[in-house]
Formats: sequence, structure tokens, C-alpha cells
Amino acid sequence: MNKFKIKFLPDNREVGVEEDTTILQAAEKAGVFINNLCGGEGLCGECRVQILEGNARPDKYSMGFFSAEELKKGYVLACQTQVEDNLVIMIPEKSRTTKDKILMEGSGVAYGQPEKVALVNGVKSAAIAPLVRKIFLKLPEPTMQDNISDIDRVVRELSNHLKFEHMEISLSCLQKLAEKLRDHQWQVTVTIAAHNSSGRILQIDGGDTSARDYGLAIDVGTTTVVVQLVNMATGEIIDTEGSHNMQARYGEDVISRMVFACSRGSSEQVHKAVITNINTLLDTLVKENKVKRTDIHAIVAAGNTTMAHFLLNLKPCSIRLEPYVPTATVYPQVAAHDLAIKINRHGVLETVPSVASYVGGDIVAGVLACGMSEQPEVRCLIDIGTNGEIVIGNSEWLVCCSASAGPAFEGAGAKHGMRASQGAIEKIVISEGGVSFETIGKTKARGICGSGLIDAIYELVKNKIIEQDGKFNLARKDPRLIPEAGDPRYILAYAAETEAGEDITISESEIANLIKSKGAVFAAIKSLTDYVGWRFDQLETVYVAGGFGSSLNIPKAIAIGLLPDIAASKIQFIGNSSLTGARMILLSTGALEKSRIIARRMTNIELSNYPPFMNEFIAALFLPHTDARLFPSVDYGK
Amino acid sequence: MNKFKIKFLPDNREVGVEEDTTILQAAEKAGVFINNLCGGEGLCGECRVQILEGNARPDKYSMGFFSAEELKKGYVLACQTQVEDNLVIMIPEKSRTTKDKILMEGSGVAYGQPEKVALVNGVKSAAIAPLVRKIFLKLPEPTMQDNISDIDRVVRELSNHLKFEHMEISLSCLQKLAEKLRDHQWQVTVTIAAHNSSGRILQIDGGDTSARDYGLAIDVGTTTVVVQLVNMATGEIIDTEGSHNMQARYGEDVISRMVFACSRGSSEQVHKAVITNINTLLDTLVKENKVKRTDIHAIVAAGNTTMAHFLLNLKPCSIRLEPYVPTATVYPQVAAHDLAIKINRHGVLETVPSVASYVGGDIVAGVLACGMSEQPEVRCLIDIGTNGEIVIGNSEWLVCCSASAGPAFEGAGAKHGMRASQGAIEKIVISEGGVSFETIGKTKARGICGSGLIDAIYELVKNKIIEQDGKFNLARKDPRLIPEAGDPRYILAYAAETEAGEDITISESEIANLIKSKGAVFAAIKSLTDYVGWRFDQLETVYVAGGFGSSLNIPKAIAIGLLPDIAASKIQFIGNSSLTGARMILLSTGALEKSRIIARRMTNIELSNYPPFMNEFIAALFLPHTDARLFPSVDYGK
Repeated sequence: MNKFKIKFLPDNREVGVEEDTTILQAAEKAGVFINNLCGGEGLCGECRVQILEGNARPDKYSMGFFSAEELKKGYVLACQTQVEDNLVIMIPEKSRTTKDKILMEGSGVAYGQPEKVALVNGVKSAAIAPLVRKIFLKLPEPTMQDNISDIDRVVRELSNHLKFEHMEISLSCLQKLAEKLRDHQWQVTVTIAAHNSSGRILQIDGGDTSARDYGLAIDVGTTTVVVQLVNMATGEIIDTEGSHNMQARYGEDVISRMVFACSRGSSEQVHKAVITNINTLLDTLVKENKVKRTDIHAIVAAGNTTMAHFLLNLKPCSIRLEPYVPTATVYPQVAAHDLAIKINRHGVLETVPSVASYVGGDIVAGVLACGMSEQPEVRCLIDIGTNGEIVIGNSEWLVCCSASAGPAFEGAGAKHGMRASQGAIEKIVISEGGVSFETIGKTKARGICGSGLIDAIYELVKNKIIEQDGKFNLARKDPRLIPEAGDPRYILAYAAETEAGEDITISESEIANLIKSKGAVFAAIKSLTDYVGWRFDQLETVYVAGGFGSSLNIPKAIAIGLLPDIAASKIQFIGNSSLTGARMILLSTGALEKSRIIARRMTNIELSNYPPFMNEFIAALFLPHTDARLFPSVDYGK
Repeated sequence: MNKFKIKFLPDNREVGVEEDTTILQAAEKAGVFINNLCGGEGLCGECRVQILEGNARPDKYSMGFFSAEELKKGYVLACQTQVEDNLVIMIPEKSRTTKDKILMEGSGVAYGQPEKVALVNGVKSAAIAPLVRKIFLKLPEPTMQDNISDIDRVVRELSNHLKFEHMEISLSCLQKLAEKLRDHQWQVTVTIAAHNSSGRILQIDGGDTSARDYGLAIDVGTTTVVVQLVNMATGEIIDTEGSHNMQARYGEDVISRMVFACSRGSSEQVHKAVITNINTLLDTLVKENKVKRTDIHAIVAAGNTTMAHFLLNLKPCSIRLEPYVPTATVYPQVAAHDLAIKINRHGVLETVPSVASYVGGDIVAGVLACGMSEQPEVRCLIDIGTNGEIVIGNSEWLVCCSASAGPAFEGAGAKHGMRASQGAIEKIVISEGGVSFETIGKTKARGICGSGLIDAIYELVKNKIIEQDGKFNLARKDPRLIPEAGDPRYILAYAAETEAGEDITISESEIANLIKSKGAVFAAIKSLTDYVGWRFDQLETVYVAGGFGSSLNIPKAIAIGLLPDIAASKIQFIGNSSLTGARMILLSTGALEKSRIIARRMTNIELSNYPPFMNEFIAALFLPHTDARLFPSVDYGK
């Protein structure tokens, strides 16, 4: 088989590959990230690259993605083009998922205010009974009158500190016990993990090491992975790092990642991507906070059902096909070591339980974090990620559903959409005088993130630039309005205001997409409220979670019909509630038990099986809604 | 450092070793077994070898073990002689622990009649609820109305077959679950281990493999290791293999093995010896019975506390020193794989719990096997191994003690003593006409085992060849009586009747040793009965367990004062009760729970702390006893 050399620009990385490898596979091998929404199926057109040197023959089908001029310049889809020559390839900015973006997002502002929620639920103030704890013991030396076995001596003393139905000990730990006790004058620190009704002794150290006791809370989002380092003894958050989910190279959304993982038998690869993600973030955390990774003994990870499957390397293939069956919804406690996560080799990992294939541990963690399942008043949680997930309920009942919102509010699917990271337009005001906007980090604009898109749509309607059906008012005279044939667009930022030196626009088809997304979320909220026979104004609180940006303009989100029209004071943006819930479980075995109860108690309504949903969806494809009575406070004027 | 070549005869094995290695260490490296009672301390004189070529300098101390003639012939103690030259070494028959002996013993007759006991306790007739079981499941295919997760589907169906408080699954098993179910049309066989109140799914096979379901019961004795292959589905014993405990190369008794393991930091080596033992026996079992080792999922091992520690590679060092503290008495369930025992890689091993450092799981298994803890009548169990262990009690109470009996009844410590294997004299009758004997396997005599020694002493007293204090009646005219200076001896078998062509004798000092052994056992029984305020004749049954031989002449054992003088019909020889108990636990999780209760309930009396014991011991150094009233039925005449 022939071998070819492929060089990727602007990274200047070269890799040798065999004939018939696709350019996308070659890029992966070279460690270069190319966007790829559809999982390499040739459907999304996101992986456009330009061949600078060498011959490549794009297949007929993918040629439809390019203009004649682009084809002449050598543009092809990386996923559909096989290598038949030595190539030099340029990856355009738009097709790249670059490292620098990742870092900025990690240290950025996109992860909400989890502390607030944690305090609301009293995790910090309550006695901490973490998943794994270290206890320093001063044991009495054995005598002829008290010559029970070493392990019985340890367990007897431990029983003064905690109660478990059974105490277990790993063989390796037991093997070292006799020497550990005697070498350290019967003063040792015992590390114990809670596991069902048992306590498992993971490690015994000589002397008092109980202050060096750390854990990780992890949110494995479809788009973003966030790792938080927590002091297990005090409950204090030490640091948080986040990055893109590197699985994005295999498809932007869960469906395309499952297609990739299953049709090509490479779910292991997708699994490894998220593990690399976590280890990379962990490297930064331990280095910057001078914490030894051997002092980290516990991890709690929350994610949707598919992400949990990829994390644990479970086969996700039946999740996406009727009747949508996952391998598990309650996950076993596993050794972090078995997943190659580089903490203490005896450390354990718990995964927040899911409800069903499309209602995951992220939403269970969210319910735990906002505490809605603890109180008699009926509340609602809306978690808007690539899927919109809605929960309504109280301490008596919990009903949930999920709707495919698409990645529009996470910045994907629009030409200039981007994640909530540096350079993203997050706030927009349009007035007679033009458009004013703010970017994250106050830099030149690089694109527009979720909160910016909500603002943009609101401002466009308010200024009559678009109609309430999302169509441009082409009669209007406005230099920013480009009536391009078929897909008119509006310039939000002129080339001079942007980093790429190219206008940032929003087009009619993109607005239609966003309306579909907000329509799906709203229809899901409406369907679920109707299903349980509740009215919006009866809801005590609506919690909104998600990665729109550092903040969400709630009145504008109501005005475009994304959120129900209730008093803005009743709506609370809680940021990354999945991460908060994971941390609560890390710090409290009671919270783990609660999360299991939440997952069991939650009734999942499959909207695809609920006929009114489609009508609600169609009715919601208007700004704010075709039924104006649902949005009495919203008035765009005539 | 200089290197030398050492050749061992008659095996003709050569090995290269560094200067200052001992001959014993060289032999071990060469895979040649040399007897070694004391753990290489130069105390027992069992490791005599003859230097045929090359210079070796025995140390002064060990020269005391040899006559001038022997020293001239080049005899040295292997453990005390360092290599300083190329050597050719002959290992005399007496110093060898040969492979062929091991094999013969393995297929021999020394392992009692465990079936009888098992039947008494109804294990076979009762419903079998084994430690690990395989269950074939036909699962309903998922539908939109029934789309619970794969693992929940398995657990739901399992709940029709068994009940556990929690169900657990290993990560590796869960990772394969989705494909296993779908590849095999939802028909799978699940292998589940009981662990405390949880069921752990170890393996899921496609189709119905539930008939291929095996386990091992193992008795790890100080002297002998026995492995029994059991059909877990039916409870049937398929085959049994036994061998010497290869740890004997590090010392014949537990004390000397602990000395070796601890003073030289080589407990790992002693651990590995017994693992090799088990794997070797297992090799034979799977080959001869055409069983796949991957179909063996469970092991239950019983042994004394030290043996259990060596098996699990726990440090035994504090067991032998006051206050005699073991690492554990209740052992965790471990993965057989972690101990390198070659069964299914997910298979588990349970170790029968011990009571204290010198009352081990072997005796707990024995109590379980004879069922004495289940009934209101007071019974007694006497397990005579290298240690004599005594239990008295009923369903209300259990008291035990152990006395160092020495290895005399297991054939060690006497010049012609041997284990109960082929060629061992097991029965003796002495009359006017001379000595008639029977050997195991009806071959020429190779030595004399425990039951033969009991017969011999009885016959010697009865025929007035020795007095009741064990001293030879030197006045007697008997060609078999050799009045050798200092240590008279009696010829039991003439050279012509023996394999080695050399007289098999028993000497006055050896008889004194045996009297000490039987005295220690009897004193322990007497002390314990007194301690609980019971009389021998109140005992419902006395169970005798141990490796004397295929049978034990109970009236003779009473007559020499080893067993208490009660009706012979009340005394039952039950063979290897440790193995039987292990098998019962293998087949019944209830039996495991019972064994833990037995271990907890049993009160251990430390005889070294019980002043009357020493008086009892001294009083028992007579045949049958200094207090004839204790043995009313015994009359040797005047």
C-alpha cells in the first residue's frame, strides 16, 4: 500500500499516512483539530480544507458544498476526501478547533456561579460526609488482653468516626497493613470510599496525612468539559479548568458522535478523547495549585447519558435507535485507574445516574444542585445545552423531558456563531444610531455566542429589522441589511471591528434555525407544564442552566419566546448546575443517594410520543409565539 | 563476586550461583527440594547433604549434627554451608522432598471421606446457593413501552432467581453488555458472585453456558495442600488432587516458615510457593477431567491463620510474637487473578475466617463440616495437624484452644517417619511371632505414618517392649531391640522388607517425642473440658480430623492416651474436615455466613495463659496417663 506525506498549515504539522486514509483521519493522526459536526458523514460541510499542493479528488457529492471558485482554489471536505498523493493542506480559521480557543474558554467566564447554588443547598455549611474521606487514627498498641487482628483494630477505631454496614479492604492495602501500623507506631491515616452500604478502605498511610485530601467534580458536557479541584476536608473549591470536549473532532453533537463510534467501531477512540481531556485539565490543576495527584482519591462526573457512556467506555450504539436503550442509567463505582484517569491509583469515580437515554446525569445533578426536589413548591429547571432538558416538580413528583434544541445557542450552526469564549459578542443593543456590542474579554469580535444571539434576535425584532416570523423586512433601508438572494443577512459587526477583518453577520436562515431551537425549548416547557396540568405563573422559580455566556439577559430571552413569560425575578440563571451537582455528591454521600432517588423518581416524557408537542413546536416558531396571550408582557408594537 | 557451578545428584541438575549463597538456596534455585524443618536456621539437621566434589566448609555449630565418619564423607547442613567452590552434591533420600512422593500422595488415600460429612449436613440435598452461580436468562426484547437500560433488564430478570440487597457489575463486564445482549438475541448466561449483601456480576456469556460451572475447595495445610474440583451446579465432587505444601522447603512448621519469611524479608517467596502448589494441582485437575479453567469462577480456601496469611500474601510476622496479632482473621473476598491462581480471570476467592493467630480457618471449617455448632448436644472436635486444635461446644457456645503438638503424627521428627503416602506403614501388630504391618499401596515399606506410629506405640507397650513411661525394657531378649548407647531403638521392618534396604526403626527418643505430642493434644482436650466444666463421658460425639492416614485405629489411639477414654462408637474419624468445610462454603453462601458466625462465637483459650495446662501436659507424659482413672478401659496388665 502506498504511503503519502500530508502537511497541515498553518500548524506546519506533517504526518505519514496510507493510501485511502481521509484527510480528516490524517489530521487526527497529526493532532490537528478540524471541525466536524456530523461525525465524518459528509453532511455538515464544517470540515472544509484547501489543498495547496498535490492532487486530491473530492467525491461528487461533497462538491455541492462549494462554489465553482472554491473548487478551483482546491477546497474539499476533509472527511470525504481520500489521500492519493503527497499533500499540503491549509485549514481555514472557520474549520479549526484551536488550542488557544480552548485555553481561553477554560480560564474564561463561561461556568456560572456554582458557589451560590451550593450555599443555597447548604453543602458547605452542613457536616461534610464526602464520597471518600481520610481519617487519622491513633490506635492503642495490642496487648495479650487486646490482641484482635490489625484490621479489626483499625475498623474498631474507625467505628468511632463513621458507620458502615460492612467494611471492606482491598487486598493490596491489607497486604501492607501489618508493616504500616508497626512502622508508624500505630498512627495512620485511613482513606475510605463509601460504596453502597459499605466502606472500602482504599489506602493506609503512616502518620497524619488527613489534610492532603482532594477530589474532582467533572462536568462532561457535549461541548465543554470542566474539571473542578475540591478540598475534600473543607469543601472548598480550589480551582476550575475547562476546555472544549475533544470528542468534537468525531462530531459536534451526541448523535453524530454515536454514528461515528458505532458505524466505525471506534467508540474506544471517542472514550479516549474525553479521558485525554480530563487528564490534560487535571495536569494544569495539579501543577498550578501544587497538589499531588496521589492526594486525589475521588471523582464525581456528571454528563448526559451518551457522555456518561463514552466516559465509562460503554457502547452507546443502542441509545440513538428506537427504543433508545442505554447500557445503564445507574453506573457502578469504578476505579479511576481503570479509566486511565491519573489520580491516586486506588481512587474511585462515581458517575451521576441518568433517567433515560435522553435525560442524563447532568440534569439529575442540576435538580440536585437547585434543590427543587426538596421543597413543596413546584419549580422548573431548564438546562439548555445541545439538547434542551426540562424538569418540573417538587418534593412529591418530578417530570422531565428533553427536546433536540440543536447547538444554535452554543454557537454552532451559524456561520459566525461561536462558544462563549474570548472575542464572542455576548451583548448587543441596536438603535437608530447603529449596533453596539460587548465581547467577552473586550477584544475585537471573533463571533457571537448564545447570549449574544438572543440579544441580536430581540433587537432585530424590536427595531423592525425582522418581522415576528423571523423574516427580514427587505423594504427597510439599512446599510447593514444585505438582501442577498435567497438568504438575506444583517451585519452585526463590520470588518473593521472584527479580528478576522470580515463582517460578522446573521442571516435569515440562521435566524430561522435559532427560532427552531428556542421553539423546541419553549414547546418542551409548554408541553411538560400542560402534561402536569400546571400554569407558568404557578411556578415558584424557573432555574435556567447552560453555557450561553457569563450571563443571560432574561427579559430578552422571554421576549423572543425562549423562556415563559413570568416575572423576571422568578427566573434564576444558575450557570453550570451539572458541575455544582457533581461537587455536591463528591462532598456528600447523602447527595449521591439523593441523586439516585431523583433519577428513580423522575418520570421521563418522550416528546416524540406526545402528540401535542409538534403543535406546540409549530406554534412557537414565531417571536415570541403565535399565541400572544402566552406572552402578555411582550409588546414589540405594531 | 565469584560465581560457582553447583551440581545436584541424583537429579543431575546444575545451577550457577554467586559466592556466599548457601547450598539450600542453590538447591532452591535449581528447583531441587531439600527438607528443612527449621526454616534454614541450622536447628533441625534435616537438610543433610554430601559434598562429592569441591571444597565446602561447614560452620562449627552444624558440625555437631554429624559423626566423625559422616564429616569425613563430606556431610554438611545445606542451610549452613556457603558456596566457595564448584561443587557436586548428593542429596540423600532422607533429605529429599521428591516430586514422585508428591504425586503419589496426591492420588493417594489420605484425604478422608468428606462426602459422608457433607451428606450429614445436607449440603447435597438442600437447595444449592453457591458462592458463585451461573444463571441462564431469556430476556424480553426492549420496546418503546419497556426501554429500561440493558443492565436494569438483566437485574430485573435476575430478581426472579435470586435476591441481593445490591447488585454490582464490574466495569469490564458492563462495557461488553450491550453487544453481548444483542449479538445473542437477548439470551445470556450471567455469572454472579455473592459478596456480603451484594451480588456481583462477574461475567456475561452469550447463550446458555450454565452447565459449565465449576469451583475449587482448597485445604492449605501446613504439610499438605489439597485441591478439590466441584461442579457448582450439582454440588458433585469431580476430583481431588493433593501434594506436599511446597513451602516446606522454607521450614516444616508454621513457626520456622514465619521465621524464614520475616527474618529474610521473603514472605512473598513463601506465598508464591503455595500458589505454585495450587496451580500445579489445578493443571492436573483441569487436564484429567477435561474442564476449562475459564469455567472455574470460585475458590474457597481453608487453612490455619498463618497459611491464610501466606496464601493472601499478608505479612505473618506478628503472629508468632507476643501478643500474637494477625493482620486479619476475617479475610476479604479477592480476585483469584490478583493471587495469580489460574482460573477464570474474573473468578473470586474466599478464605475461611480464623478465630485468632493460632486458631485458624481450618478449624472453623471443621466445626462447620461436623455441624457441632448447630445442635444442642455438646460435642468435641479434635483436629490433629502440626498443631493440635480442639473445639468443644454446641449451638449455644463454642470454646477452642490449640496446642503445639509438633509434626510427629504427620510423620516428621522421627528418623523413619513419613507422611501418609505410598509405602507408609499405616497398621502394625506385634505378637510373639514378630511384627506384621501394612503399607499404603501394599508396597515395600518406605517409612511410617501417623496411624502406624500410634499402632506401634500401642503394640510396644502391650507387648512390654516399652514401659508405660516410653522407656525400652532393655532386659528383654528381642533381636529387634537394638540397645544403642543413649537411644535404644526397635526394628519395625527389616531391611529386606523396605524400599531403601535399610531397617525401619523407632527409637526411645522418638517415642518420647510422640508421647509429648499425644500428651499435648490430650492435655489440651482435658484443659478445655475442665475449663468449661464438662466431663468426657458427657460428650455426645468426639470428631477426630487430621492426616494420620486413611484410617485411625481409635481404640489404640485411646489406649496410648491420645484420645479421651469414651466409647469408641462416640468417636468419629472425619478425615480432612477443613476441605469439607471449604466445599460447603463454596456451595452455600449460607455456610459462609455460618463460618463467620462460628469464628465470632468461638472463644479462644490461650493455653500458655492457662496455668493448669502445664500440669495436665506433664501428667499426660505417660501411656496412657499418670492418672489411670482417666482411662478406666485401658489395661496393659502388670
